[in-house]
Amino acid sequence: MRLAELSRRSGVSTATIKYYLREGLLPPGRQLNATTAEYDEEHLRRLRLVRAMIQVGGLPVAAVREVLRNVDDESLSRTIRLGAALWALPQVPEPDEEDDFVRAAHREADGLLEALGWSNARLLTTISPAYRSLVVSVAAFRRLGYDWGAELLVEYGKLMHEVAKLDLDVVETYPSEAEKVETAVLGAVLTESMLQALRRLAQEEESGRRYGFE
Amino acid sequence: MRLAELSRRSGVSTATIKYYLREGLLPPGRQLNATTAEYDEEHLRRLRLVRAMIQVGGLPVAAVREVLRNVDDESLSRTIRLGAALWALPQVPEPDEEDDFVRAAHREADGLLEALGWSNARLLTTISPAYRSLVVSVAAFRRLGYDWGAELLVEYGKLMHEVAKLDLDVVETYPSEAEKVETAVLGAVLTESMLQALRRLAQEEESGRRYGFE
Repeated sequence: MRLAELSRRSGVSTATIKYYLREGLLPPGRQLNATTAEYDEEHLRRLRLVRAMIQVGGLPVAAVREVLRNVDDESLSRTIRLGAALWALPQVPEPDEEDDFVRAAHREADGLLEALGWSNARLLTTISPAYRSLVVSVAAFRRLGYDWGAELLVEYGKLMHEVAKLDLDVVETYPSEAEKVETAVLGAVLTESMLQALRRLAQEEESGRRYGFE
Repeated sequence: MRLAELSRRSGVSTATIKYYLREGLLPPGRQLNATTAEYDEEHLRRLRLVRAMIQVGGLPVAAVREVLRNVDDESLSRTIRLGAALWALPQVPEPDEEDDFVRAAHREADGLLEALGWSNARLLTTISPAYRSLVVSVAAFRRLGYDWGAELLVEYGKLMHEVAKLDLDVVETYPSEAEKVETAVLGAVLTESMLQALRRLAQEEESGRRYGFE
């Protein structure tokens, strides 16, 4: 398809598509002559992903480029490629390792992973941004003076494992490795707000069931 | 306890406590004389909640005041009071009701609530920010050109219902109505990032189990 059709089918303006091409977020089309290039379904798919990250996820162009570099790195194994793409997404600030609450939160997070039997995740604690993010939130909670919640986190973890299985099941429905990795990134960017909304709706539902509206 | 002890036990500086008192985020202590006031455990609890909302949740003072107004409104039923407190938290922008994708997303969200059997949540769709937030995310997803995910949202919904039951079980362990509502607010502000981190860790765990690290 030509640029105009790519624009029509993606809902992205030709000016924006040209900008993404210049920034290297979209691979160049097949040049037909000096002024005309041909694009295919792969361009359309990539364009949707870029738009999801920028418009919905609010990611800066540099972060999108970094994510795509990992998405396209065929030298990586699937687990590492999935991880590398997701890890390039913006993350929480680094925990302050000199802080007592952070040190205690590391021990608590390690105990949690052990209680959950997540031996693969435990192999990644030195490099995983998700692990650091857990440590930061647990430290913030404890610093506020709350001492409950350890058992709750185990239960949350079990349910989030079920969510993660659904996430990976969706990823596996895609035939190519590139689409698998793209779908994982898309899921991370787009489904977070859906899950949060569903949790709050479920709280309203459950609250109504337990206490009524009177 | 005096101001100095309240500061020590909460980890909040006396200057900040005075600021919260002036802003009405903390009820005044019992005045012992012109310069000394006495504070109790309730002040400490409230101070931790205010700090969680401002420092961890990043809420502006006006939003905190609005949340607390609902937390303290004893004329409301528990469901409404829980909802009102949570609904005062900052929300996603309003959906554009003239937009075709938003209208389609309303139908999809309604169908989802019906498929989940969430009849209480369905009573609240005209007023619930969580419902609006779901509509906004679904519309964004569809606008990007993705047409899958309807069955996935039902499965996500079932799991989030289990999360919500855990959330309310925690709330119910508190004796007073005020503490129940405070804990619900705290959960909304503080556990979101923990759940998100656990989901990503679970994805790493499950990815490692399915594909290994080679």
